[in-house]
Amino acid sequence: MSYTILSGGVGGAKLVAGFDALISSAEVRVIANTADDFVHLGLNISPDIDTLMYTLAGIANPQTGWGILDETFSCMSALDELDGATWFRLGDKDLATHLHRTTMLQKGNSLSDVTAALCAALEVQMPIIPMTNDLVATRVHTDDGVLDFQDYFVRRQAQPAVKRLVYAGSDTAAIAPTARDALLRDSLKAVVITPSNPYLSIDPILSIAGIREALRESKVPVIAVSPIVGGQALKGPTAKIMNELGLESSALAIAKHYHGTIDGLVIDTTDSALQSSIEALGIKVCVSNTVMTDLISKKDLAAAITDFAANFEPNA
Amino acid sequence: MSYTILSGGVGGAKLVAGFDALISSAEVRVIANTADDFVHLGLNISPDIDTLMYTLAGIANPQTGWGILDETFSCMSALDELDGATWFRLGDKDLATHLHRTTMLQKGNSLSDVTAALCAALEVQMPIIPMTNDLVATRVHTDDGVLDFQDYFVRRQAQPAVKRLVYAGSDTAAIAPTARDALLRDSLKAVVITPSNPYLSIDPILSIAGIREALRESKVPVIAVSPIVGGQALKGPTAKIMNELGLESSALAIAKHYHGTIDGLVIDTTDSALQSSIEALGIKVCVSNTVMTDLISKKDLAAAITDFAANFEPNA
Repeated sequence: MSYTILSGGVGGAKLVAGFDALISSAEVRVIANTADDFVHLGLNISPDIDTLMYTLAGIANPQTGWGILDETFSCMSALDELDGATWFRLGDKDLATHLHRTTMLQKGNSLSDVTAALCAALEVQMPIIPMTNDLVATRVHTDDGVLDFQDYFVRRQAQPAVKRLVYAGSDTAAIAPTARDALLRDSLKAVVITPSNPYLSIDPILSIAGIREALRESKVPVIAVSPIVGGQALKGPTAKIMNELGLESSALAIAKHYHGTIDGLVIDTTDSALQSSIEALGIKVCVSNTVMTDLISKKDLAAAITDFAANFEPNA
Repeated sequence: MSYTILSGGVGGAKLVAGFDALISSAEVRVIANTADDFVHLGLNISPDIDTLMYTLAGIANPQTGWGILDETFSCMSALDELDGATWFRLGDKDLATHLHRTTMLQKGNSLSDVTAALCAALEVQMPIIPMTNDLVATRVHTDDGVLDFQDYFVRRQAQPAVKRLVYAGSDTAAIAPTARDALLRDSLKAVVITPSNPYLSIDPILSIAGIREALRESKVPVIAVSPIVGGQALKGPTAKIMNELGLESSALAIAKHYHGTIDGLVIDTTDSALQSSIEALGIKVCVSNTVMTDLISKKDLAAAITDFAANFEPNA
């Protein structure tokens, strides 16, 4: 019984940690969003891959949602004195990851291979797979102009109102071969979409034609977890963006957003009243606690998803 | 009364510090060797510029001869855990310099402009000028093959025997415009060659045709300080390399090496017996204490050089 998870950073990493606790890591693979990746200070930075990797290595900083535990920032302090760019906070330990990635990429290695090497060094067992080895970059069209993702998300703290999202490069980007393998392996029971931000983290993955094709070819159910609970996002700007795009922020709106892609949706018990409306769209519903506050609740949600997956008809 | 100094790293930086203590920094400029520069971990590193800059900023580490005082190495420790390359030790603060330089170069700024910006941020008044904005790279032909400079110097601790030195790129490299200005300004009284390693630090500067031309055009005396004292180098592999090249390591051999380039040579009191042999080459000699152990002795040596320069006939 194996699973492949589509994930962004923080919110997704919580559920991935739940699967890691529940199931042998050999059975679970994660396809990570790379449209947040950018070159900063000459370094290749892959924020979602790193959050997943640090989470699974047990060294993620749970307070910040990014970076490494017990981190120091001597380099950033020195860079500040040089009038360098310090709005994207890179810890001294975290810098090692980016230096090593940049070096390996410049030597001609693919992001897939680099990520596998970093995971091996950090003793992360679960494969973390970039959605593509090609360049895809989320561009945020806002009321304050078209912004690069990290400019919007980190420097401007997701304050500008979003009008449209473009995943530049996704029309030509090829699915990473290991991502295709992960979606089409024989033992696969379900594809799981984490409660990451649909617009900023999951849609970039789904924007790759090769990913959509592999999801179609695969006969397993695709199950998403709603990132909206009681009309609100537990973390991050998902509800804010939905409102800016003229959408109601609700689990039903999430179901409509993923309609055509997913077979099942896990919604929070708070939202159980929406079950029949979602099922009317032809999407199966699992009602569960989806708020992940500790490892127990993360593991319980993973277990609810695997139970839910077992209810789907084969070749449905 | 102004001076332009040709310098490599550690040994040269001591004399530059002496000039900085002696004379208004507006009157002194340093042209730095850049043939040690390399790209490592994706970063543009300029070791000699940085040693000069950190020395003049008062933040150089006097114990190591490289890097910054009170430095931490969290990034290197993390990189070691990732099986990354850690043979070239980059401190956390020092990394900021390389990140900022790399970013500015990638934006299209020249190394001259980047260096000026870094010096301004560190409140270094004396202009530090790269010999060229083009790529020149010292390649060390040894009994262990042809080695990149830092591979020879840092990774292999200058152990392989040197057979020949090549400054790749120097045949096409243009003198930096600010270096030309520094060698041809009206107020210039002398050009000073520091007791840096002639083969590894000074010859790369002299290998640039534009530097040699500017030295010829300039009517001021060129005065070197012998890096060999009592047959030995005070620091570094100068004597070792001379022996490997089949040369006697002596102040006389230094005079012969720089013959045709210099008008005067400062030798140590230990070597006063060599004065007449050097003068027989047509090179004026100044006998002085050249061992720089503290700021007083650095400043005294700078003063001896400026006194020596005053003895040359105008337009000699």
